[in-house]
Amino acid sequence: MHIGILGAGQLGRMLALAGYPLANRFSLLDPAGTPSADIGRIMTGQDDDTLAEFLAGVDLVTYEFEHLDTALVERIEAHVPVYPSRRALAVCQNRGDEKALFSHLSIPTPEWRLVGSATELAEAVNAMGAPVVAKSVTEGYDGKGQAVLHHADEAEAAWNSIGHTQLVVEAFVDFVREMSIIAVRSTSGELAFYPMAENHHHQGILRYSMAPLADISDDVQARAEHYIQQLLDELDYVGVLALELFQLADGSLLVNEMAPRVHNSGHWTMDGAVTSQFENHLRAIQGLPLGSTRALHPTCMINIIGREVDASEILAHEDVHLHRYGKSERAGRKLGHLNVTAPTPDELKARLAEVHPLVPDVPAPRFLAWESSREA
Amino acid sequence: MHIGILGAGQLGRMLALAGYPLANRFSLLDPAGTPSADIGRIMTGQDDDTLAEFLAGVDLVTYEFEHLDTALVERIEAHVPVYPSRRALAVCQNRGDEKALFSHLSIPTPEWRLVGSATELAEAVNAMGAPVVAKSVTEGYDGKGQAVLHHADEAEAAWNSIGHTQLVVEAFVDFVREMSIIAVRSTSGELAFYPMAENHHHQGILRYSMAPLADISDDVQARAEHYIQQLLDELDYVGVLALELFQLADGSLLVNEMAPRVHNSGHWTMDGAVTSQFENHLRAIQGLPLGSTRALHPTCMINIIGREVDASEILAHEDVHLHRYGKSERAGRKLGHLNVTAPTPDELKARLAEVHPLVPDVPAPRFLAWESSREA
Repeated sequence: MHIGILGAGQLGRMLALAGYPLANRFSLLDPAGTPSADIGRIMTGQDDDTLAEFLAGVDLVTYEFEHLDTALVERIEAHVPVYPSRRALAVCQNRGDEKALFSHLSIPTPEWRLVGSATELAEAVNAMGAPVVAKSVTEGYDGKGQAVLHHADEAEAAWNSIGHTQLVVEAFVDFVREMSIIAVRSTSGELAFYPMAENHHHQGILRYSMAPLADISDDVQARAEHYIQQLLDELDYVGVLALELFQLADGSLLVNEMAPRVHNSGHWTMDGAVTSQFENHLRAIQGLPLGSTRALHPTCMINIIGREVDASEILAHEDVHLHRYGKSERAGRKLGHLNVTAPTPDELKARLAEVHPLVPDVPAPRFLAWESSREA
Repeated sequence: MHIGILGAGQLGRMLALAGYPLANRFSLLDPAGTPSADIGRIMTGQDDDTLAEFLAGVDLVTYEFEHLDTALVERIEAHVPVYPSRRALAVCQNRGDEKALFSHLSIPTPEWRLVGSATELAEAVNAMGAPVVAKSVTEGYDGKGQAVLHHADEAEAAWNSIGHTQLVVEAFVDFVREMSIIAVRSTSGELAFYPMAENHHHQGILRYSMAPLADISDDVQARAEHYIQQLLDELDYVGVLALELFQLADGSLLVNEMAPRVHNSGHWTMDGAVTSQFENHLRAIQGLPLGSTRALHPTCMINIIGREVDASEILAHEDVHLHRYGKSERAGRKLGHLNVTAPTPDELKARLAEVHPLVPDVPAPRFLAWESSREA
């Protein structure tokens, strides 16, 4: 099967690498014109001729990023199926719609409100209690289009600085850790869930994901699976879906946001699970049976951001897998990741203590999962 | 690093898939003009212009098959390093030289003689005792250029039918199983050995490889490692080397032949070992530290020959990994392979009983490793 991918960055690259063994062929279309995948047939732009060339011979289309023009997706849907669906994409492009869907499905989230004016924003701060974060409902990626308000009298300035007609206002949450769950649903409706990961960000970028977690109960995993399954079913979703969550001190979970694609917090599955998220996304959209999502061993993913590692140093350490994206160095850019595996959580901790200093600009890992063995 | 590969079949394809995560780029040159790899920059032919184009930007060259023109390799060596070396390649291209090297290094083999005439062939049959197999020293791949002799008076006819000036005559060996060991040596001299595999052929083509083996002692593994290490050291070898062996009823090993490349009997490592043979070959030729060769779980590789499997059927079974080569069906052609893994040897046996009937034209697996737990 010949698969088209919208976007030609590292996610498209890793999808293609996972798909060659399934005898898939790939065409990658990078609308923005900055492809880095260096695999398959790569095109840039989104004019009619380029789109026609992209679609020639392609059996279905998927995408590696959600900030896509839905009109483009609509044009493609006239020719071949697009997975995940345009509805899933549209929901993920609008924070208001996304929050409303969570609430509609009784999926717990931090308290939130939709506001359409500086006055409503001020009212929200007063009603919800400061601090709050206000975000434009559309776009707003990696902290752009956002403002933190500590008092209602900051509403006017915040409203003007964000400059959108509609904002989502969210209460701050006193969480003990950030987590995610990755699930996959095929065209046949078959479902599979990966073990939850604990995620750590630094300067707004994911640095570490570790899974599986020794300190979470089956009940926590089951609750996360229930939440994401509500979304998969409601959206008649096909492909991999990622759900980011906050865990509170009492063990409960609040859902933060979702991403309709393979996700950075699922890269550990490449060396840590029986079937990677990339292969399962491809199996799902082709209607093949899903592969086992079982973890093979404790695994920690470390992102390589901005500056490269020395492969000779890194690979001298046992059970470290290097995944480079073939990009040049630039501040804040995701250049690759490492997966470190070990037979036990304690051995993984010891290995990470040796390996993390070899990754530039990454703080020492501090996982809540290491701090106690309590059932959260 | 930009790596050139001579040959653009499935081995080149799997090398490239293993090399993208190391940020390698690939150019593949298929001298015979029948590429199937469908990855990287692919060229065909071996004229000067093609060779110059192939070498442009390439940092080093390796190969996926040993029936290469050594003159071509010599031309390439004038520009960039070629691994494994031309000497290793030349030895593997001449059965007489190969056997002589084994004997020189005190590596046990079936009894053998070199003969240069029909008369010498008849003498060899009488001296060694029939039956024997006579093989041309060069070429002779997959049973071509060979004859089995049951009596000295068949020598004249056999000599004429093979039509070469020099033959290797080998005694038949009453072996209990065929095995192989895969080892890797880097430019720095670092060595690593994979656990031995038990191999089963059908109609002259490998059908099954299983590793690791519960029924072999550390001593047998150590002896095989000793033999292959003699070869690696003597040839100042760089890359993956495969050694095929016969095991006799008393547990002893006789070496059959070697292959200076990644090998079909090592495909189990893709899903069964910490680091695949493909990644380790690439690490070795680039001078990177080698990855662990430790087995993760019992694994069996099944070759898909001539006719395709139904992916929907195959992938419905747990822990089955499909590796297709992107080729069309043709009798005797290697189209792909499966790796079946399981937590224990018994569970692997049960899974294979379910999976092997889904692979066309493959007999039921019968591994010696299943028949007893004796230390061989």
